[in-house]
Amino acid sequence: MKIGILGTGMVGSALGNKLVSLGHEVKMGSRTANNEKAVAWVKGAGAKASQGTFADAAGFGELILNATSGHGSLEALKAAGANLKGKIVIDISNPLDFSKGMPPTLFAGNTDSLGELAQAALPEAKIVKTLNTVTASIMVEPGKIGGGDHTLFVCGNDAAAKATVGEFLKTQFGWKNILDLGDITQSRGTESFLPLWLRMWGALKTPEFNIKIVR
Amino acid sequence: MKIGILGTGMVGSALGNKLVSLGHEVKMGSRTANNEKAVAWVKGAGAKASQGTFADAAGFGELILNATSGHGSLEALKAAGANLKGKIVIDISNPLDFSKGMPPTLFAGNTDSLGELAQAALPEAKIVKTLNTVTASIMVEPGKIGGGDHTLFVCGNDAAAKATVGEFLKTQFGWKNILDLGDITQSRGTESFLPLWLRMWGALKTPEFNIKIVR
Repeated sequence: MKIGILGTGMVGSALGNKLVSLGHEVKMGSRTANNEKAVAWVKGAGAKASQGTFADAAGFGELILNATSGHGSLEALKAAGANLKGKIVIDISNPLDFSKGMPPTLFAGNTDSLGELAQAALPEAKIVKTLNTVTASIMVEPGKIGGGDHTLFVCGNDAAAKATVGEFLKTQFGWKNILDLGDITQSRGTESFLPLWLRMWGALKTPEFNIKIVR
Repeated sequence: MKIGILGTGMVGSALGNKLVSLGHEVKMGSRTANNEKAVAWVKGAGAKASQGTFADAAGFGELILNATSGHGSLEALKAAGANLKGKIVIDISNPLDFSKGMPPTLFAGNTDSLGELAQAALPEAKIVKTLNTVTASIMVEPGKIGGGDHTLFVCGNDAAAKATVGEFLKTQFGWKNILDLGDITQSRGTESFLPLWLRMWGALKTPEFNIKIVR
């Protein structure tokens, strides 16, 4: 299928590489049409990869993945604007504030969340928050650790969109255990997980881990 | 050993019952010497149980467990005051704010934490933050789910105190996997986990679960 990725960082590239390798056509969007990192990514990823503006990527994709940084997330979604109308947007962004030193703090996630802000800014898009609780390499290959037996969270207001995303994550990346937390306000939960996630990374000396629910 | 518990709620009672059943002497502390819930708990728990003020419980215990609510935590610790000097205080409190409806939000945990505030208020006590990421029944019996194969976090400034607490949790309650996140500022991570924990509870329909690190 045709997929638009917003963001040219580590997450966008990892998603793009995996999706191209699976045979999808991927357009990577950025603030400018010929962002240096996007152009470099396209060169490496081959014929099914292309780049453009946020609006170009949003217009191109049947499915959109928002892999921008937290601070740039709403700006990118607004730039994509009308091209997101009616589309499913997988929102992976986290509200990390690096301005106060490391580890970063959160600029949302307690009484609000980036997921909700995105849905409010784009009422005609179907925002599905997911993948934001694992590092890029695990997002696209959960089987890399523990045989894939660990938990991914999903939330959003549109049940059909969540079902589509769940199927996509299972069939394309291999996710086995996906827990639906409810509507988009539940993003507060998964975004608030980041302060613990960052500290686990510090203690474990690797970002390649995830949590599994035991009950 | 002699253990002081601050707090008369579900967590304090569960800890008290378990510790008495293991043969420890437990004094449950509250704002007043004869708190109704504490008196009722003592009646049910038997000869090794007693109650008193926060200062009484702190003076009695060789080890102290702070099981007060987030809003009452610092007040309780300050009331215990000098009696906590040099002692290990296991801090289980979470900064939950129920004033804005359910699920509760956090009044600390991003740029500060209850663990740090406790250590700052009582520089001569050894605050060890732990147990705050699971429900009371799992705190005292981790083997109740998944054969006990799941993760507990610990943090604090005093390495020897953390080692003592780790040994206590293993030998008394049966915790197997304890991850040391570092100094007391890491409480920001485990306290910030509560918004996700509460939503997992909602989705799973039970608070009797925990997370296991998979890597």
